[in-house]
Amino acid sequence: MKKIAILGSTGSIGTQTLDVISKKEDLEVVGISAGSNIEMLEAQIRRFHPLLAAVGDEKKAQELKIKVADTNCRVVGGMDGLLELAQMEESDILVTAIVGMIGIRPTIAGIEAGKDIALANKETLVTAGHLIIPLAKKCKVRILPVDSEHSAIFQALNGEESRRIHKLLVTASGGPFRGKKREELENVQVEDALKHPNWSMGQKITIDSATLVNKGLEVMEAKWLFGVPVEQIQVVVQPQSVIHSMVEFEDGAVMAQLGTADMRLPIQYALYGGERRFLDGERLDFAALKSITFEEPDMKTFRGLPLAIKASKIGGSMPTVFNAANEKAVGMFLKKQIRFLDIYSIIEETMQTHTVIERPDVETITELEQDVYRQIGGRW
Amino acid sequence: MKKIAILGSTGSIGTQTLDVISKKEDLEVVGISAGSNIEMLEAQIRRFHPLLAAVGDEKKAQELKIKVADTNCRVVGGMDGLLELAQMEESDILVTAIVGMIGIRPTIAGIEAGKDIALANKETLVTAGHLIIPLAKKCKVRILPVDSEHSAIFQALNGEESRRIHKLLVTASGGPFRGKKREELENVQVEDALKHPNWSMGQKITIDSATLVNKGLEVMEAKWLFGVPVEQIQVVVQPQSVIHSMVEFEDGAVMAQLGTADMRLPIQYALYGGERRFLDGERLDFAALKSITFEEPDMKTFRGLPLAIKASKIGGSMPTVFNAANEKAVGMFLKKQIRFLDIYSIIEETMQTHTVIERPDVETITELEQDVYRQIGGRW
Repeated sequence: MKKIAILGSTGSIGTQTLDVISKKEDLEVVGISAGSNIEMLEAQIRRFHPLLAAVGDEKKAQELKIKVADTNCRVVGGMDGLLELAQMEESDILVTAIVGMIGIRPTIAGIEAGKDIALANKETLVTAGHLIIPLAKKCKVRILPVDSEHSAIFQALNGEESRRIHKLLVTASGGPFRGKKREELENVQVEDALKHPNWSMGQKITIDSATLVNKGLEVMEAKWLFGVPVEQIQVVVQPQSVIHSMVEFEDGAVMAQLGTADMRLPIQYALYGGERRFLDGERLDFAALKSITFEEPDMKTFRGLPLAIKASKIGGSMPTVFNAANEKAVGMFLKKQIRFLDIYSIIEETMQTHTVIERPDVETITELEQDVYRQIGGRW
Repeated sequence: MKKIAILGSTGSIGTQTLDVISKKEDLEVVGISAGSNIEMLEAQIRRFHPLLAAVGDEKKAQELKIKVADTNCRVVGGMDGLLELAQMEESDILVTAIVGMIGIRPTIAGIEAGKDIALANKETLVTAGHLIIPLAKKCKVRILPVDSEHSAIFQALNGEESRRIHKLLVTASGGPFRGKKREELENVQVEDALKHPNWSMGQKITIDSATLVNKGLEVMEAKWLFGVPVEQIQVVVQPQSVIHSMVEFEDGAVMAQLGTADMRLPIQYALYGGERRFLDGERLDFAALKSITFEEPDMKTFRGLPLAIKASKIGGSMPTVFNAANEKAVGMFLKKQIRFLDIYSIIEETMQTHTVIERPDVETITELEQDVYRQIGGRW
């Protein structure tokens, strides 16, 4: 029996994780958490009977405690609650499906408590990869990617020696504006950017997909996850999103993972620690598929990707600045305070004015995020 | 140091095997062989300094013995010579790059002598898979595929559990007549059939590629190599021949191996027992590639494939009959004695008149081949 705690059980990855768990006899959820959605949390408690539920919002935690007083589930609140969930003795694996920098401290707590991490929180490795990876090694825990691209690479590396890697090929759909030029993006509206061609996701990640910032963040994560320098990570646009990513080895062989757009597959693969189990999802039908096409990413137009690569190469605190500037800019774009292309300008200018701090600790990273928010808020 | 003996060192796979060996410090050739091409064999002896050279033709063996009397290479002849090469004490691995049923006995001898087999001889598994696979298991030797499709599957299965396989997807270029209908094939000439779209090979295999018999033989081999029933092996036409084959697992993930058309890659992968080493070949360029397309094979027109599947499902001696009938028919087509579509009729009629022998031994298989040759020779 594998016992699972989920940081962020009410979001897209969290609910799909519960769906996977519900179909397997040998998976059990022991802890769940949410920021403030206690209605869904209550339903999950009644269905899955976890031992512990953590709520980010302290007041909501109190409300939930009363609602589920008739159950055996203990309710905890605030960052202390999230940390308790991450370290709970009864779990073997911690799914970090929480969004934002708030995920970093619980992830570290989970690693220190010896939990394997099924990683779905982007910020953890982007901003604190230099802390997380050595810590995981020291604590002998595994970081298991949940993102479909990283899972594809993880699957392609199964049984392989990492010293034989020549490069990682991270695939990208290209987003809703693929093929468009800079001039055409000047007057793009929020509504246009929210139309993703291949799947529906949250608003922030959908904008990140349109700017290619998302792909940039994935490149940054891949560097840490697989220990491959950014120079050896290539982004390949593959608009049908059938190839989820690839690895080229030094003999020239390219191993690829293909599949439908079902996130339950990488989630399940991570929960089983890189082993396969039956999944009742839709199968690829190659005859119906007809073709898979490839393009180079348009780095001149979609500057999210080259800016991310630059931030990653500079390293230290720069990836945190890149990520925070993007987060703030996307928020402003969604509120229609800035235009689409301003997202790039804000990221670039913020990076330019930043003096890099080598190997920032978690406190520095968190403070820096707030500094960047304030700086952008004051200037734009 | 890995010591290698090559059955059939003067053919396409044999010479490419020597090319791979010539570039690696830790690979050494200890034995080579040819049917009758002693000129090339002499050159190989002088370049690679093997301990033993076997020549199928006894008279040619005597000639070679005199030519290389100044070297330390011992020359042996006939089937006894090939068997001696297969079992030579100094080798770790036997590459079976010889064409035809003549490869079966030396392969068995090699297995019994404890050599790992780098298998490039199709007939071995097609006709005698029921003998070879249990024998290899008993003698604890590995059968390492050299064919690009089987190597791709072998690579995709690296690190995976075979019980998790849902199906094997063997890719096919579709051959020079892909898209043509039966009527259009009626007056096809030898010259048309010898034009393969993606690579140049021997005449027999090029015709087999045009009839899809070659793909049928690969399905038959895959069944034995990977222990997967024919029902779970699907042929996918992928005309650019970039995807060399795939495996779909029970979670829906498809693992694929992609690459350029460089046979040295699967050869090297087999020589290192399923480990990767640097290879200086051309790399895939996805931007230049633009697209990969897929089709279902046209089983109604290209009956080589369904006939092979049928022979494989019937089993016993039927695959031998299928293979021998095809060999004879292709020989007749190349001599312009029959028309292209007659190849299918000959295979089908010969299969229809055959009474299946369960689990034929090597002698029965060899005799049956001759019977089939005679039968077709007498009737057409």
